[in-house]
Amino acid sequence: MATIQGKNFIGYALSSEGEREFQAYAPATDSFLPEAFHCATIGEVNRTMELAKEAFDAYAQVPAAKRADFLIAITEEILALGDQLLERATLETGLPIARLQGERARTISQLTQFADLLREGSWIDASIDTAQPQRTPVPKPDIRKMLVPIGPVIVFGSSNFPFAYSVAGVDTGPALAAGNPVIVKAHAAHPGVSDLTAQAILSAARRTGMPEGTFSMLYDDGFEVGAALVKHLVSKAVGFTGSYKGGMALYRLAQEREEPIAVFAEMGSVNPIVVLPEYLKNNAENLGKILAASVSLGAGQFCTNPGLVFITKTEGLDLFQNSYKAEILNTPSATMLTAGICKNYNKLRGEALEQANVSVLAISDKHAEGDNQAEASIAMVSGKDFIANPKLHEEVFGPFSLLIVCENTEELYEAVSHLKGQLTATLIAEESEIEAYPKIVRQLARISGRFIMNGVPTGVEVCPSIHHGGPFPATADSKFTSVGRHSILRFVRPQSFQNWPDSLLPDELKNDNPLGILRLVDNAQTRDSI
Amino acid sequence: MATIQGKNFIGYALSSEGEREFQAYAPATDSFLPEAFHCATIGEVNRTMELAKEAFDAYAQVPAAKRADFLIAITEEILALGDQLLERATLETGLPIARLQGERARTISQLTQFADLLREGSWIDASIDTAQPQRTPVPKPDIRKMLVPIGPVIVFGSSNFPFAYSVAGVDTGPALAAGNPVIVKAHAAHPGVSDLTAQAILSAARRTGMPEGTFSMLYDDGFEVGAALVKHLVSKAVGFTGSYKGGMALYRLAQEREEPIAVFAEMGSVNPIVVLPEYLKNNAENLGKILAASVSLGAGQFCTNPGLVFITKTEGLDLFQNSYKAEILNTPSATMLTAGICKNYNKLRGEALEQANVSVLAISDKHAEGDNQAEASIAMVSGKDFIANPKLHEEVFGPFSLLIVCENTEELYEAVSHLKGQLTATLIAEESEIEAYPKIVRQLARISGRFIMNGVPTGVEVCPSIHHGGPFPATADSKFTSVGRHSILRFVRPQSFQNWPDSLLPDELKNDNPLGILRLVDNAQTRDSI
Repeated sequence: MATIQGKNFIGYALSSEGEREFQAYAPATDSFLPEAFHCATIGEVNRTMELAKEAFDAYAQVPAAKRADFLIAITEEILALGDQLLERATLETGLPIARLQGERARTISQLTQFADLLREGSWIDASIDTAQPQRTPVPKPDIRKMLVPIGPVIVFGSSNFPFAYSVAGVDTGPALAAGNPVIVKAHAAHPGVSDLTAQAILSAARRTGMPEGTFSMLYDDGFEVGAALVKHLVSKAVGFTGSYKGGMALYRLAQEREEPIAVFAEMGSVNPIVVLPEYLKNNAENLGKILAASVSLGAGQFCTNPGLVFITKTEGLDLFQNSYKAEILNTPSATMLTAGICKNYNKLRGEALEQANVSVLAISDKHAEGDNQAEASIAMVSGKDFIANPKLHEEVFGPFSLLIVCENTEELYEAVSHLKGQLTATLIAEESEIEAYPKIVRQLARISGRFIMNGVPTGVEVCPSIHHGGPFPATADSKFTSVGRHSILRFVRPQSFQNWPDSLLPDELKNDNPLGILRLVDNAQTRDSI
Repeated sequence: MATIQGKNFIGYALSSEGEREFQAYAPATDSFLPEAFHCATIGEVNRTMELAKEAFDAYAQVPAAKRADFLIAITEEILALGDQLLERATLETGLPIARLQGERARTISQLTQFADLLREGSWIDASIDTAQPQRTPVPKPDIRKMLVPIGPVIVFGSSNFPFAYSVAGVDTGPALAAGNPVIVKAHAAHPGVSDLTAQAILSAARRTGMPEGTFSMLYDDGFEVGAALVKHLVSKAVGFTGSYKGGMALYRLAQEREEPIAVFAEMGSVNPIVVLPEYLKNNAENLGKILAASVSLGAGQFCTNPGLVFITKTEGLDLFQNSYKAEILNTPSATMLTAGICKNYNKLRGEALEQANVSVLAISDKHAEGDNQAEASIAMVSGKDFIANPKLHEEVFGPFSLLIVCENTEELYEAVSHLKGQLTATLIAEESEIEAYPKIVRQLARISGRFIMNGVPTGVEVCPSIHHGGPFPATADSKFTSVGRHSILRFVRPQSFQNWPDSLLPDELKNDNPLGILRLVDNAQTRDSI
């Protein structure tokens, strides 16, 4: 059994200089767990960042294959924590063990995919234009380009994914893979899981000989440490998944620096679903089941939870509503991640239900055991009232969804025209009817990062074609994804090398292509040497 | 002969609602040209942006091959303006005709390269993960991804490149290629060139049937119109090349929006050159000639002008200094782009020369004819005094360079450690001595977007391997380049399509690959159909 340390991990050393401490909270039993976690001081922040600065010099030089070994060692160390990690996670988050097993597997898979990417090597986007010394009027120089790391990356874990979006998750994996030191601000909602995961990463770093300071992790149950990390001059980028308010606070801090840095903030989404009439007519009953399952999955605590469903007053509506209602009523309540999230869910749901002409379609009355329970809830409103009330366009984090019943597809188009940027948009339609609604299709495309047909937005496949990042305010920068191999592009920049002698070039750019990677050479893709 | 209109180009219409006018200035004769240019009003800005919003709906649907035709038509229309365009450009900028011919050729080449990119098509980065309906525990959905345009792009022309970085330059080309409408804020330093170029673009747009509002251009000799364009909700990105002050003002405006947008600002650079001792010993005389030519090229009005040269008190220094001095003394003065730029050059050069322990190595006394003349000037300072005085680290836009004479390579390393982000860094060294200075090499790599060996930073080759964008403050975002094919990545975002029926997918993602582009299909690069 590993021991939870409760201290800040500054490189390979433990540090607890501050006086502020906090304990982990167990939402299912509304109680605090015994261990104390020491909040970092500003002095510890500065020490961590100075170490990260030194570590960058060394870590950026570690060959890609060695960094791949490091990532695989992390997966081994995480798995070696065995049930202890899962049990701590279920205590701290209220999430069921089965879900956590799946999430751990996803986390291992993410890290393994980055190790594979490093070993294959072509992701570095090597490009070579050979010299033409005889060209007139001016000779063409030899120019080569590849992606290089940017420097220390600050990672903010997310409360709703204690593995996949936390200490060893979607930001840490690609940042380390790219050659950047990582400094995690542990999420106060699962400090014990964070502590164990940090130990796993540090054991892996030691075992594979990574420079000290390649990874550090600090605690805080407030905002001071996170703000200090973002403002520190050594920091070069920030990864964040959480609320709009939290994300924008960090974004503004980072922009106000003398040297602004990127904050890759994923800030939630209402993930609109649009149902077209012909589909409704043919699949009303089944649709109710599908939507109810998606809305209530994981107590609705997903950034891809479908918060708005747009539908028309056409044939099948009653049948759909009855099915949807029956499913929701029959959905057991579930423990939310923290007391704060549960309180906020009830508050925002209450506010939504108090809005003009909003009615309840269904609120689950099937209560499960435990504290901090959230009941799946569906509200209803007309298209007209939705359009008039921006409050209803906002996210209610939890198993809540608003059904917007529009008079016709024209009103539906107007309603979706008022939506801001989203991680996903979903069109539920018969294939034959889609071409009749080009404006609706275009609008859903315009506002979304991932456009789903006849599916649900929950469930994010980790694969090269996934894009998990939508137009603002879903994410701070819609060009980048936090899921999939392209997420590494957040933590690199291109660099050109002009007229370098072959022996001094990085291996990726040498004439004989010692790594055997796919390169663009004089405008043609090839693995050949020059 | 085309007629200079002097009015705002709002789509295909001319508009001159405002009362403010200005005239073009001819720097070589310190005089104003006859035509009046009407500054746009805020009402005209709003009208332009509403039109751009509508145009985006239509233009984003125009097939890539048609957009390529449009770009080629622009090159034809520009060339059709013939000598009129070159003559107007030399009048408005003071740049010699030969240089302008070269710059026009580069502009044509840039646009042609984007047309080629569109016709080949693989730049869209299509990626396909096919479904695995039998996968357990959950089926794998079909997910496909490609790059899509983002919306209207605001382009600020740059004074020093009236063609290549202005109305039809490095921002407009890729923004239009990607499928985004472009709104140019014409640079007040060359309004006539801008006017003629806008007419060429609009003729091309008409001829190839592009939607109205795909291109617009507004005038202003102040800041109001530019600020209003950046703040307008319809704007989705900004391209800018110019001063740090100007770039950061736009950047801050864009960040303060409720929906922040990217400002791809290239804000200048001092482009440090480091000379190592062995090279100095062997090539002292020739080095003076090479540097003098680079510093004074184009009256030093390049973002890649070498403003700082670091050297050591070692064998060859005297010989180098004598050669450098002789070359500079013999360099004729040249007309600067505007009276303001010339005045500013003299002011900043004066301030640099007044700093403690700064001496003059050489100021050209070879005066050419014409007004607004800049003399090539080299100042000298010790490494110690350079390190102590941040004022000396700043850009003096024009044919000025500071020679930093360091006691030894340790002091040289310390001096370059104080530098901020740069477009380029250059190492001038014998190949055999480089490995003795890993810290210097690492530092130059860390701060630069393009790292040159034994060359000069002036002269930016337009090719796939070029990266023209350095760490802040050289550019606002070091991930992106304004030169080369990858510059198109500034104006697109990835979008995923999940479970779409083949017939409704964009051609780039259809099973049978009708465009024949290179795609990543289930993790393998291929042009095959599925």
